[in-house]
Parts: sequence; C-alpha cells; structure tokens
Amino acid sequence: MALRAALRNKCGLSSLLSQLSSCSSHGGVRVSPAFIAQQRNNSSSSAVKVDFDQSTGVAVLHMQSPPVNSLSLDFLTEFCINVEKLEMDKSCRGLIITSSQPKVFSAGLDIMEMYGKSPERCGVFWKAVQEMWLKMYSSNMVTIAAINGSSPAGGCLMSLTCDYRIMADNPRFSIGLNETQLGIVAPFWFKDTLVNTVGHRHAEMALELGLLYNPSEALKIGMVDQLVPEDQVLTTAAQTMKKWLAIPDHARQITKSMMRKPTVEKLRSEREADINNFVSFITKDSIQKSLRMYIEMLKKRKG
Amino acid sequence: MALRAALRNKCGLSSLLSQLSSCSSHGGVRVSPAFIAQQRNNSSSSAVKVDFDQSTGVAVLHMQSPPVNSLSLDFLTEFCINVEKLEMDKSCRGLIITSSQPKVFSAGLDIMEMYGKSPERCGVFWKAVQEMWLKMYSSNMVTIAAINGSSPAGGCLMSLTCDYRIMADNPRFSIGLNETQLGIVAPFWFKDTLVNTVGHRHAEMALELGLLYNPSEALKIGMVDQLVPEDQVLTTAAQTMKKWLAIPDHARQITKSMMRKPTVEKLRSEREADINNFVSFITKDSIQKSLRMYIEMLKKRKG
Amino acid sequence: MALRAALRNKCGLSSLLSQLSSCSSHGGVRVSPAFIAQQRNNSSSSAVKVDFDQSTGVAVLHMQSPPVNSLSLDFLTEFCINVEKLEMDKSCRGLIITSSQPKVFSAGLDIMEMYGKSPERCGVFWKAVQEMWLKMYSSNMVTIAAINGSSPAGGCLMSLTCDYRIMADNPRFSIGLNETQLGIVAPFWFKDTLVNTVGHRHAEMALELGLLYNPSEALKIGMVDQLVPEDQVLTTAAQTMKKWLAIPDHARQITKSMMRKPTVEKLRSEREADINNFVSFITKDSIQKSLRMYIEMLKKRKG
Repeated sequence: MALRAALRNKCGLSSLLSQLSSCSSHGGVRVSPAFIAQQRNNSSSSAVKVDFDQSTGVAVLHMQSPPVNSLSLDFLTEFCINVEKLEMDKSCRGLIITSSQPKVFSAGLDIMEMYGKSPERCGVFWKAVQEMWLKMYSSNMVTIAAINGSSPAGGCLMSLTCDYRIMADNPRFSIGLNETQLGIVAPFWFKDTLVNTVGHRHAEMALELGLLYNPSEALKIGMVDQLVPEDQVLTTAAQTMKKWLAIPDHARQITKSMMRKPTVEKLRSEREADINNFVSFITKDSIQKSLRMYIEMLKKRKG
Repeated sequence: MALRAALRNKCGLSSLLSQLSSCSSHGGVRVSPAFIAQQRNNSSSSAVKVDFDQSTGVAVLHMQSPPVNSLSLDFLTEFCINVEKLEMDKSCRGLIITSSQPKVFSAGLDIMEMYGKSPERCGVFWKAVQEMWLKMYSSNMVTIAAINGSSPAGGCLMSLTCDYRIMADNPRFSIGLNETQLGIVAPFWFKDTLVNTVGHRHAEMALELGLLYNPSEALKIGMVDQLVPEDQVLTTAAQTMKKWLAIPDHARQITKSMMRKPTVEKLRSEREADINNFVSFITKDSIQKSLRMYIEMLKKRKG
Repeated sequence: MALRAALRNKCGLSSLLSQLSSCSSHGGVRVSPAFIAQQRNNSSSSAVKVDFDQSTGVAVLHMQSPPVNSLSLDFLTEFCINVEKLEMDKSCRGLIITSSQPKVFSAGLDIMEMYGKSPERCGVFWKAVQEMWLKMYSSNMVTIAAINGSSPAGGCLMSLTCDYRIMADNPRFSIGLNETQLGIVAPFWFKDTLVNTVGHRHAEMALELGLLYNPSEALKIGMVDQLVPEDQVLTTAAQTMKKWLAIPDHARQITKSMMRKPTVEKLRSEREADINNFVSFITKDSIQKSLRMYIEMLKKRKG
C-alpha cells in the first residue's frame, strides 16, 4: 500500500526540507539544450521562460526562479500573464510546464508571502494563487506537467491542474499536498482538485496527514500518470502532447469543460469568501508563530 | 498503466474501423446453439431476439442487426419495447444483453441517423437514445452485459448501464467512449455513467482522448468486471446471474435505486434541454463535415 | 478481481453465521495483557471498557459485549457516552476501537432490536445508530479501527467511520455491508460512507450483493487500509496513531471536517425522515417475516 509506505518512508517533511535547502545552496539554473529563447520572454530576470514552437503549436513554460520556484506574488503574476498570452494565441494548442531548477519542480507557495504581511497583502497574494489555479484548471490548451523534481504543496497543486502528469522516476523526489505538516490547511479547491484526481479516500488520507509521496507511490494512487527517467521527462511530455493534439480541439475542450466546470464554478462563486477565510486564518497569531518556527528551521538547515 | 497502454496500443480508431468493416463484409449471424425461439420475437427481420427462460426468470436479449448492431432509431425502438415488456413481466428477474453478430457487441449510435437528417428527426433519434439509457440504467431487473465483441461509443454506454459486465478476453476487441476521436462529444449522462463506473480521473482521460481499451486495460480501470474466453461469455453471464438473483429482489432494487437515482433524475429533469443541445451541435456545418469525412473513410475501407 | 473472488469464496453469509455462532458458544472474553482498568469503566458488566493513557493522549475502547458485540440499544448508548466523554476531554487526542471478543469485531446491529418491537422502540434504536455514526464520523479525535475479527453490517459501518482501518490478516474473518443478504437495506448514510471509502462502483456492487470480503479482498478495494497478523493489530494501531498525532491537531481537524462535513450534514438535515423510513420499512410484515426466519436459522445453528 502506497499510503503505508508514504507514512514509513524517508520522503517526509525533513527529508524534503534537506533536499530543498541543498537545492538552494546550488542556486544554478539547468538550461535545457533544446532551449530556444523567445522574444517576449528573453529577459534573464524573468521567473518563467516560454519556448513556443509555432510548427507544433506547443509551448514549454520553464519555471526558473532560484532557488526552488517558490510561488511568490511576483512569480504567480508573471506565470499567469504568460499563460494568459498563450491561451489567447489561437496557434498555441498545448502547454508543457517544467522547471529549470535542479531537483525541484516548485516548492509551492512562498512562505514569505504569508509571514508578517498585512491582511491586504495576504489577500492580494491569495487572489493570485486562485488566479493561477483558475487559469490552469480551465485552460482550453492541453496542459502537461513535466515534473522534473520535488513538487510539494502549491507545486503539487500546479501539477494537478494539468491534463497529464509525467514525473521523473527519482526516489528522492516527492509530491503531495503537505499543508497540514506545516500546521496550515489546504482550501476546498485544492481538496476538490485532489479528489477529482485520486478519489475521496486517498485525498482524505493525503490531506489529513499532509503526505508526500515518492514517484512510485504517487503513480500507484494516480497522483501522477507516468514515470520516466529524469532525462526523458520533457521528451516524453512532447510525445504525449502529440497524442492529445490528435483529438479535435473543440470536442476535447467541451469534454474538459464538462469534467471540470463544476469544480471551477465552485471557486468562482466563492472567491471573495475564500480570500477572507485565508486571510483570517493565516494572520492568526498561532499560525504566524508556526510559520516563524518553520522559517527558522529552514534558515538553520541552510546555515 | 492502462491509459498509457491504451494510448500506445493498436486498439485505436483505425484498428477498430478495420475490425468493424471486416465484420460487415461477413454480415452473417452467429446463432447460439442454446437459442430458443420465442413467440413474440420469432420474426427473422427483428433487430433483437429475446430468449426468456421462465424456469430461471432470466431473459437473454440477442442483438442481431447486421452488420454491427448499430443503434439506429429502429433498433433502439425495438430494443426498448423488448426491455419494457420484460420489465413489466414480473416473472422476469434478470436480463442478459449480448450480440449475435461476429466480433462486435454493438458499434454504437448509427452515424447515418446523425448525418444529413432534419433537426426534428435528430431530436427523435436522440430521445430514443435517452430512452434506452433511462430504461436500462434504472431497470429493476438484474442486468448483465455479455460483451462478446468490440463495444465502442453507444455500445460501451449500453454496457455501462448494466449491473455487471463480462467481456470476451480477445485482445482484438475494444471498448470505450471514443466520441472525441470522431469530433463529437459524449453528453453529461454518458459522462456521469462512466464516472460512476471508473471514477472521475479515468473518466476524464477516457473521454478527453476518446480512448478505446482492450479487454485487459478495461478490466484494470474497472470499465468491465470480468474477462473470460470468448466461448464462455454467455455461460459465465448465466452463472453470475444466479448469484445476483440469490439476493432478495426488493432489497437489491431499493439499493440499486439509491445508487443510481441521482444520475437518472439529472437526465430526467434536463431531457428536453439535452435534446436541444444535441440537435444544435450535430446539425452544425462543421460537425456534419466531420461526419461526412468519417463516413467516406468507412466506405473506402469497405470497398 | 476482489469482487469476483468475494462472490466465489467461502466468506459468504452461511460461513459468517457459523463463525459467529461458534463464537457465541465460547462466550469467553479475551483479555489483553496490556489491559489497564480505568476507574470510570471498571464495572465488569460494561459493554465497553476504555483504557485511556494520559501520557500518549490515546484511548483504547474495547468492545466486550458477549458473544459478538451486537449493537443493541444498550450497547450503543454506552458506546456513545464513552466516546462523548473522550471527545470532551481535551487531553484525549486519539481513539482506538477494538474487540475483546474472540473472532469478531462486531456482528453489527442487534437483530433482536428490530424484531417484534414497537415502532416507537424501533425509532429510539435507530436514533442511537445514527448517533454512533454522527459522533464517530465527525470526531475531532484521530480514530483507528483495530479490526481483530469479523465485522459485518453495523460492525463494518463502525469501522468505516474511523480515520484508519487495520484488520487481522485471518482469511476466516470477513467485513462488509451485507444487509441485502438479509433482505434489508443499508440507508443512504451507510452508502455515503462506503462510497467515500471505496468509490461509487465498488460500493454499488458491495451493497447490491451484500458482499462480505475476506481481509485481502477488503484491502484490495480499500475497505481496510492495512493487514497485520492477528496478534499485532493493537500494537500496529498504536504505532499508526503516533504518526497521525504528529500532525498539528487544528490543521488535521479542519481538513477532516472539510472532507466529511457534507456527508455528515446530509444525515443531520434528514435525521427524522431517515428514522421514519427505517421504522416503516422494518415494521413491514414481509420484513419481520424475513427477520424471523433469519433468527430461527441462527438458533438452529447454535442448537
């Protein structure tokens, strides 16, 4: 059983932290040889870099925000602008999301956006997280997550919004919505996305225990769809994309909307309430204290 | 993973088409040795033939409309009349659906009913498809699909309405809701039936990609319940029926209704809107063009 | 496939009955060596016995109502009072439910409470069943079922309310909601609990056929989470509890509530109607006749 294994194995929080902090001491950007600079994204200061191949209609979005692609307000804003541009571009039919950072896909929501910030700022941040999810989960493009590193919390959420998930088969990597391990709570739309992917029971266990799964456990419960060697994640994503693009867009899009619309509409209709919930929860003294302890632990590991 | 295999394997649309068109060149009806003519269905022109065994309370409905049991308006009307008769007959407790055609259970909705027809006629046709689903999915009888051949699209839907699905373990056969491959879309109640059977995530992939599964893949995701050698499909269905009939009818029926009623009521309450949706979609120029191309491809294969 | 195996194997109703009746001829209470009498529950006439360890914050509730822990009105009342006490005690964070009776966890609802009783009394009984479910399914404590024997019907329901299920790996034990085999029907909230645990399709088959699964089949469909040798059920439960208690309570509790609240609210809002349904169903002549035949069969087996 994958869940027992996840409870038992070494891909728990501390292991993840050591991975992530060792990443951050690297800080380097692994540049794909196939990398082709694109005009609208050729600034080296960009948090994301988009390669759009007009001949295939497929864009690859590289997350390249050192050290661990944390989802800060700036990152999310830039991410959403780029996804929106591609969504509007009728020649773009498919989007592959991947990471240019070593060992990590995305470490999830940037804790610094939630610690010691004003309620207003927290609200703006949360709206950006919602926006990323809404754009991705209801995208008309075929979306594939090429998960070439660990992907906890918000990184897992981003993966779950895609149509298909390919993960590097490296047992040191992990993926999951581990919010409870940090004393915080995944909101209902994180939960809905997970239930839609792995079913009610696996979601219940995963969320209550804040489980991080290694790749083979994640495959077993359906949190990812396919494992490949680390150096084949992107090429497999490109091959898989061809199969998805063989389906007529209009039929696939109507079908995707039929599957996901109820989940999307639920957040759309409760968006303000969800922001208020988040802000009142995250600004509590007890939660701020938990976050401070967590941040201090991270600093010690880096030191 | 079954889904990757389905994407990769040879049971795709073209393979299915070649199977179905090779069937149609046969055109013969395989008559079961156990066949017992029944008065009300002894006309050789009937699309379906019902053997009802009073001693067991079990009816076997043989679909025998050459070449591939396409669900035309005539076929559906005759099918529904026969199911309704059995439903009203208190001595009939179980219904096994199977095919008398070689290699195919049912090829699904008859495309000729959707191509070049008036909106009125399309509406009448769609109402008959709804009727088949409503009757079968909410039947008080124990219903078992003895799937002795390929079962794409509407053929798969008919299988999914049953309480139990036994499929011939022949890797050349396939089953699935492959509508998107033809540029059309399975409506919400096809989707609901599939989600109820294989869960949300498998349904999402299956429907967006229009996947056709070979028998072992279908078993793996739960689209069918059991595989047996081709010549044992009917006998296994009869044995399985005995186990289902060992349960007191009233308790089983109330339980079945509890499981399926919300799904049934959803279509009942939106029946007219669903017909209008279908008619306006299928009569679009672009969809008619897709269907014409598909029909021409079928003709070439036959020629 | 677990379901086919369950249909085929020997853990059917008659096998279960023979197990249960052989238990009842024992009538002995297996006392755990680790048993520590607790003041508030040290009466030997108690149906349940609670060991609460202040140092770990974990209580173990032993069901010890000979012969088979039937859920009578008295039993349920005592069970609920004890759970309520622990729920109110802030120092109690985890609850393990197990049986002190040999070979059986709980045989489920006490049939004698449903046979030959007044409608009023049936209503009071059913309210107590609801109360047990409501308390357990929405408990703020971590709840683990240490299933050290067979667990049909109401015994299975009690297990399903827990956060985690560990079952003794003894092929003679079985678990399942087998109500239809007795001609009665599991109500919607039994069904909802099962769907939340094993998904819609497995729940449909399990409930319509009243399937009893042996431990390995139950594990395969997710009805239980883990199998261990019979003498390690309690120690494994205690170890597992530590992992659950490592998660901050507030985050875990909010998450659990998010997962289960809709299911809990559904019964809360329809509680009276559900009682009326039960009473009018169970007091029917035909149902009373079924129950009498069942009770007579049980008596013959004991004789």
